[in-house]
Amino acid sequence: MPTYNLTQIAQHNTVTSCWVIIRNKVYDVTDFLFDHPGGPQVIMGLAGRDATAAYVPIHPFDALDKHIAPEKHLGDLDQASILELRQAKKVQAKTRDELRVEEALKNRPPLSRIINVQDMEETAKKLLPYKALAYYASAADDSITHIENARAFSRFFFHPRVMRSVSGCDTSSTILGYKTSIPVYISGSALARLGHPLGEVNFTRGAYKAGIIQMVSTNASLSYGQIAAARCSSDQPLFFQLYKHKNDTTAAKRIQEIEALGYNAIFLTVDTLVPSNREMDTRAPHYLEDFENQGTKRKSDSKDDQEEVDILGTAGGLIINNDNDMTWERTIPWMRSVTRLPIIIKGVQCVADAVLAAEAGCDGIVLSNHGGRQLDYSLPPLEVLYKLHEEHPEVFKKTEVYIDGGIRRGTDVLKALCLGAKAVGLGRAFLYAQSAYGETGVVHLVRILQREIRFGMHSLGVRSIDQLSPEMVERVDWQPALPAKL
Amino acid sequence: MPTYNLTQIAQHNTVTSCWVIIRNKVYDVTDFLFDHPGGPQVIMGLAGRDATAAYVPIHPFDALDKHIAPEKHLGDLDQASILELRQAKKVQAKTRDELRVEEALKNRPPLSRIINVQDMEETAKKLLPYKALAYYASAADDSITHIENARAFSRFFFHPRVMRSVSGCDTSSTILGYKTSIPVYISGSALARLGHPLGEVNFTRGAYKAGIIQMVSTNASLSYGQIAAARCSSDQPLFFQLYKHKNDTTAAKRIQEIEALGYNAIFLTVDTLVPSNREMDTRAPHYLEDFENQGTKRKSDSKDDQEEVDILGTAGGLIINNDNDMTWERTIPWMRSVTRLPIIIKGVQCVADAVLAAEAGCDGIVLSNHGGRQLDYSLPPLEVLYKLHEEHPEVFKKTEVYIDGGIRRGTDVLKALCLGAKAVGLGRAFLYAQSAYGETGVVHLVRILQREIRFGMHSLGVRSIDQLSPEMVERVDWQPALPAKL
Amino acid sequence: MPTYNLTQIAQHNTVTSCWVIIRNKVYDVTDFLFDHPGGPQVIMGLAGRDATAAYVPIHPFDALDKHIAPEKHLGDLDQASILELRQAKKVQAKTRDELRVEEALKNRPPLSRIINVQDMEETAKKLLPYKALAYYASAADDSITHIENARAFSRFFFHPRVMRSVSGCDTSSTILGYKTSIPVYISGSALARLGHPLGEVNFTRGAYKAGIIQMVSTNASLSYGQIAAARCSSDQPLFFQLYKHKNDTTAAKRIQEIEALGYNAIFLTVDTLVPSNREMDTRAPHYLEDFENQGTKRKSDSKDDQEEVDILGTAGGLIINNDNDMTWERTIPWMRSVTRLPIIIKGVQCVADAVLAAEAGCDGIVLSNHGGRQLDYSLPPLEVLYKLHEEHPEVFKKTEVYIDGGIRRGTDVLKALCLGAKAVGLGRAFLYAQSAYGETGVVHLVRILQREIRFGMHSLGVRSIDQLSPEMVERVDWQPALPAKL
Amino acid sequence: MPTYNLTQIAQHNTVTSCWVIIRNKVYDVTDFLFDHPGGPQVIMGLAGRDATAAYVPIHPFDALDKHIAPEKHLGDLDQASILELRQAKKVQAKTRDELRVEEALKNRPPLSRIINVQDMEETAKKLLPYKALAYYASAADDSITHIENARAFSRFFFHPRVMRSVSGCDTSSTILGYKTSIPVYISGSALARLGHPLGEVNFTRGAYKAGIIQMVSTNASLSYGQIAAARCSSDQPLFFQLYKHKNDTTAAKRIQEIEALGYNAIFLTVDTLVPSNREMDTRAPHYLEDFENQGTKRKSDSKDDQEEVDILGTAGGLIINNDNDMTWERTIPWMRSVTRLPIIIKGVQCVADAVLAAEAGCDGIVLSNHGGRQLDYSLPPLEVLYKLHEEHPEVFKKTEVYIDGGIRRGTDVLKALCLGAKAVGLGRAFLYAQSAYGETGVVHLVRILQREIRFGMHSLGVRSIDQLSPEMVERVDWQPALPAKL
Repeated sequence: MPTYNLTQIAQHNTVTSCWVIIRNKVYDVTDFLFDHPGGPQVIMGLAGRDATAAYVPIHPFDALDKHIAPEKHLGDLDQASILELRQAKKVQAKTRDELRVEEALKNRPPLSRIINVQDMEETAKKLLPYKALAYYASAADDSITHIENARAFSRFFFHPRVMRSVSGCDTSSTILGYKTSIPVYISGSALARLGHPLGEVNFTRGAYKAGIIQMVSTNASLSYGQIAAARCSSDQPLFFQLYKHKNDTTAAKRIQEIEALGYNAIFLTVDTLVPSNREMDTRAPHYLEDFENQGTKRKSDSKDDQEEVDILGTAGGLIINNDNDMTWERTIPWMRSVTRLPIIIKGVQCVADAVLAAEAGCDGIVLSNHGGRQLDYSLPPLEVLYKLHEEHPEVFKKTEVYIDGGIRRGTDVLKALCLGAKAVGLGRAFLYAQSAYGETGVVHLVRILQREIRFGMHSLGVRSIDQLSPEMVERVDWQPALPAKL
Repeated sequence: MPTYNLTQIAQHNTVTSCWVIIRNKVYDVTDFLFDHPGGPQVIMGLAGRDATAAYVPIHPFDALDKHIAPEKHLGDLDQASILELRQAKKVQAKTRDELRVEEALKNRPPLSRIINVQDMEETAKKLLPYKALAYYASAADDSITHIENARAFSRFFFHPRVMRSVSGCDTSSTILGYKTSIPVYISGSALARLGHPLGEVNFTRGAYKAGIIQMVSTNASLSYGQIAAARCSSDQPLFFQLYKHKNDTTAAKRIQEIEALGYNAIFLTVDTLVPSNREMDTRAPHYLEDFENQGTKRKSDSKDDQEEVDILGTAGGLIINNDNDMTWERTIPWMRSVTRLPIIIKGVQCVADAVLAAEAGCDGIVLSNHGGRQLDYSLPPLEVLYKLHEEHPEVFKKTEVYIDGGIRRGTDVLKALCLGAKAVGLGRAFLYAQSAYGETGVVHLVRILQREIRFGMHSLGVRSIDQLSPEMVERVDWQPALPAKL
Repeated sequence: MPTYNLTQIAQHNTVTSCWVIIRNKVYDVTDFLFDHPGGPQVIMGLAGRDATAAYVPIHPFDALDKHIAPEKHLGDLDQASILELRQAKKVQAKTRDELRVEEALKNRPPLSRIINVQDMEETAKKLLPYKALAYYASAADDSITHIENARAFSRFFFHPRVMRSVSGCDTSSTILGYKTSIPVYISGSALARLGHPLGEVNFTRGAYKAGIIQMVSTNASLSYGQIAAARCSSDQPLFFQLYKHKNDTTAAKRIQEIEALGYNAIFLTVDTLVPSNREMDTRAPHYLEDFENQGTKRKSDSKDDQEEVDILGTAGGLIINNDNDMTWERTIPWMRSVTRLPIIIKGVQCVADAVLAAEAGCDGIVLSNHGGRQLDYSLPPLEVLYKLHEEHPEVFKKTEVYIDGGIRRGTDVLKALCLGAKAVGLGRAFLYAQSAYGETGVVHLVRILQREIRFGMHSLGVRSIDQLSPEMVERVDWQPALPAKL
Repeated sequence: MPTYNLTQIAQHNTVTSCWVIIRNKVYDVTDFLFDHPGGPQVIMGLAGRDATAAYVPIHPFDALDKHIAPEKHLGDLDQASILELRQAKKVQAKTRDELRVEEALKNRPPLSRIINVQDMEETAKKLLPYKALAYYASAADDSITHIENARAFSRFFFHPRVMRSVSGCDTSSTILGYKTSIPVYISGSALARLGHPLGEVNFTRGAYKAGIIQMVSTNASLSYGQIAAARCSSDQPLFFQLYKHKNDTTAAKRIQEIEALGYNAIFLTVDTLVPSNREMDTRAPHYLEDFENQGTKRKSDSKDDQEEVDILGTAGGLIINNDNDMTWERTIPWMRSVTRLPIIIKGVQCVADAVLAAEAGCDGIVLSNHGGRQLDYSLPPLEVLYKLHEEHPEVFKKTEVYIDGGIRRGTDVLKALCLGAKAVGLGRAFLYAQSAYGETGVVHLVRILQREIRFGMHSLGVRSIDQLSPEMVERVDWQPALPAKL
């Protein structure tokens, strides 16, 4: 293998010749620039330089092999350059944000003090690097839908039934025929390694240990192969959340890889065609710049008078190749033609589309607005579920219906199930759990929910999940005053 | 009687041989470990040691005689050991929480300044040991139901009637045929001695003096015998709140004892089969640990990485032997077979169960969600009462209906009575009153309510309780802005 | 006239012989003790002593002549005693509250800065002695009705009409046939002299100057004779707010005096039979005690352990002789038999009673809950008006309908008039205006309202009051977020 | 030209002879005093003195030529006086408010950090002179309608549609046949030069660059001639917002000038007949007086005891000559008789008037309550639009319907368009944008909205504006909790 030094590499910093260093290896990424999901400008910002720190936490380990042709793996950095980089890194003072995180980790509460989902979120938010926090926590525009997703649950009250035999109460159920210890799954979410070095594997192992099912995102920070390989048992089920590439051939290749790796279902994401406006994420670079420079004067900025609007956040780059022309007529039959896996539509946001999905023969529907991260003022999924139950109860017989968004309590899970949902997904909550406590946090979160679900079942007078029924829930005409922290 | 020293006793600290010291006496509680309502771990934490301080405030005086076989009453602590314990106690500095309470007691306002129920609550909250406060004040999950119980009353407004003769207005009524000065009773509540050394006897004496009726909890911190003996007159009525033991024989024995002691009715509690999630109570040990160690470093905790979820609070241990398989068909006839006392179902939370209770021939129903301490998002009792009145008015003719939860004002009492309730129960309010001012506080609280009820009757244009009618109340379609302190 | 010294007088301090000094004169009030509207204990607190400071601001000048028989006017204080009292008064330091008021008066904003009703209230609240503030501002229980009275207006929005000729817009109207510059009157309120030395006369003169009508309360701090004498013109109309004495003869005498003095209508108050629970007023003595003793230790209080509940406030004493047995059948015909003045019922709080009042042939109805000072959770008058308009529009043809409570803006007045009210009353707002600026404040307040009403008429597309109509108002189904200060 | 000195001019300070200096020229304005739209007192406050600083920022450059007869242009100030004025100005310290603005400008964030409409508003509010802020930001009475205009949008949620082909999504549309890059126009607003020296021309140039249309107010701080002359291309469309003068001849002259200058439509303003109560604006002089005199004692004020109520703010003076007697029958035909331009009625506030406007043959309707600046409690335009759509859908076929008030997000625009609006207007937002960043700010604001609109269209499943439909929007029965800053 040839070796290169920093000076040589630094000269390749243009769109016509763009090299980068990653983990002391040198790559020519010129041809890939315009295929990069985040657009070429992201790479150009690092052209001719060491890109390791920026690259590693948000890309699967096999991304370079997959996307950069072998002949563009130019060779290694020479020893002198390696030492120079290492030295530079040592000299470089820790950032204020890194110091903040270090201090926070020292004060991390013992897991025994985490007694509900909210505790987990609050704890993780203190521990996360700001960039990760901004990506995980951000939601669209004014976060109305993000907040209303959760608030919707507060308008549904119970009619608990008493004097019913409930001993031996069992919280287990199935999703697409696969057994689960509680009717909850880990919803697909990107970039788990921003929060914890082991990333999505924490979900894989935690899910196995706790008896629930993980959905793996196309945008996971580990490759779907790595995650499949991390399964604790050959029959541990895994679901895949697909962002369909606009090129059908590319998309078909991915689907077939997934099927070959033993994934058990495909959740086709239909609510995320283009990057949305997640302002916390967009503002994160500004926030960090100000945080690091506290007390010093902001340098003038060449962008000061620009008229164009950038979306700068972490999220922006993940989805620019998504297919914007999917239709019920074309896309579902095409998917059936390339895979035998069950197909679930994730991102249905109104009753009409739920009906169309069922008519199109989908195996499941996720009523979801992407956790309030896409279109603000999309109706809360629980409200859509309630309407669907009122207006088209036949849908629940044709297909399994799930919801995600805003679930924080066992009572939330039970409300959704009473109204016809087969299971519910949690995304951010599991991201927070693994960020703060790794695999153990994931298991702990399931235990919390299981305890709350079991208690709720006792109180509602049921001893198995299938006894939950719509009569046990009432949509009230007032709005409870929620705890301030929500 | 043999005597033992501390060293001897300390050796019996395992599940196969477990001794404890209580009030300078030595008990072998090995056989009882797994019958303890709070589970064996509670006792094991004190095994081989003096358990007096932890034991006394939350157990009736006769509990040891009742539950520990005579031969397991091993004997006395020897004199040297008694002195050693006493010395240790003297040396032991007062805790920060004890000092806080002492200071608060010095600033206790005179009773003349307590002019409403809220004042009483606020005063008591400042005076209570944190452990007691956490047990009394805590509610399920996010306290939504606890708060909404009270907030429900704010959506009901009056249609006061004028130009009606109201002189000689009389606030008295009856409950199950027993006379009461106002249509209010002291609802059963556990562990009154956590707040005041005389505990439940404050209720007994205060109720007599004020002319109202006390309901005694199975979990009272005095035995039901002691409370019965504290009656001020042989005909002072007393109600009993029964947590039915899962073993019918044990349960029957308790019921018959109750009847023999002269109790006048049994309120069978049906909403509390298993321990619920009361987070303030659960967090109390953590809170106190942090409070005592303020400014010092928390020691590392062996539970730091556990995945299981403990409920640590005071409440947890009270109910683990409750019958989880009661039914209308089985349990009511069985109770009729063991007692001639009136049977009231406490904890009905929806219209359907109220109808079933009436059909089952119960003598009364308490619409109650246990003060929001069991299932969060259980409908507020006042809303259930309103629905019951709208949908099944015949129930009020078949049986007496009571409600508890969220009552703080005479107007609250009147709203419930207009909608058909025969009387209302207050639990926490009386706990706070006796904690802050003993028996006198209990009487004062009744006087406050009586004054408010009488004024309300004047304003509504009625001169006796039975003139209250549904037309005097309207459920409005807006939510008043409540005072911040609620 | 005989004279007495302080030592002699001090001996008459029992219920069997009770003397007091008022304005250096000596009265034997023994026989009057139990006729005192505030009860004997109020006088007994001053027995054998100089009662001037407590007596003067809350009693009409002629009260002594009226209630104390001539032979009980014993004589004068001797010169030495007069000097002694004067000296004592000089030595006596000003109270903290007096100093606070003095300072506040120095910072009173110029009237030009008072641009709305809320400004007037805020300004006055800073200037008032605490006792006056507590009496004026207090409301029943938790002030829900007081707040909701105002909040009700916020749920009514306008349908303004454009392209209508509105030049020459005229805000004047009539009440019971008497001309008024705006459809607003000064509602009867007690104790104006607590806030300003000239008291109710500020209303009389201000009303004349601004062209509106004053209603005089039975509990005014000037006698109705004095107020009648203060009229600026012989044809200035005056209304009288009657609290009917339980003794018909006493009541008839008062009514006939009123008629003889030239009052033009009688507003019979029916919502205030007994003293209500106004907590700010009740707490005022405690508040002042703590305020004056700031930093010092509270002395122990003999009432510390009392069980009875006192209402200590200023309001309590005003109404204990009110007739609690008025009825439509008896009282209206009786009033017609003793007076030819128009009879208006003040304090109607529901539709049913409005209908009964109209059927009883009353000349007017005031939908009022006494400014939220009597029964908390009485429906807001605007809501009652709206219902009355929906359910019994014929009432508006039979009788004039007024409302009071919660009016702060010209738009509030217009909403009430659109829904059928003939005029609206303001009480507290005028109390605040005269307290802060005397007669000028009263005129200024009318000018503010007139400007707002005129602007509103322009915007609604009407040029005279009678063009206001129900179609211009809509009750919306959401609750606006009101400014924090409300 | 004759010259005058300061002493000579100072003598002409009465209503019978009133001279003022503006830009070193001397004018006799005696005859104009009572034609001044703000009333004579505004000029009299500057009589005999240099009025330049007060005059310039709020009057078009040609106002003197237009309103003051040539013979009243008396001549120039002499050189000595010019120097004296200049000297006086130098000596005069900057005001605290000027210093505050200077400091704020130094900390103005780069435009790249302005990522939504709210950011723009917040930034501008920090930079504006207080007088400008008070004029721009103020709203009627308690700002209820101003706030509810925005809050109304929060009650409308989307039914986003998935699996629809949306690539090539196009945000452009037309208004009255004129092309616009997004369905948004700059609504007419007065006095842009209060916020930026170039004033309305920033709108003209920014609108051209961003491809949208500007509406020019009668009360613009540049003349409509100047603004027309600033067009970037001869075919750049411009709309005119007309406040019709009460004198038809004066009004016709203005309309014909407008037409001759090439304006493309007339928006007749019908909701602003008389000055309204904008309290922030009214209080601005008091606020500034206190701000400048911080720490010093307020001088006593001759107005301290006045009873009359002044409206002192900037807004007051603009509209006192408006026609208060417009009607559908008279005014529309009259306008048709004097112009061939399309006529749009701006300020329709209820369904009934929208129907009448359509019947009167108007070319368009703006549902508007003047941004909440006129009648408080006027219904939010979005609610009127919703009702119009429900009750009179035919109106949308007869005429174009626009709305303004409360729009801050692309989603707001889309909601209005789904419900039938052809376009929406923003006023304050553009004032803030040009105040903070001039023309560039205007373009940036359009880019923000365009990005949000395009994203919303993608998410709703439409690729052109005309595919937006009522089924995509639902009015919900709860009120989202809005971000605190709203």
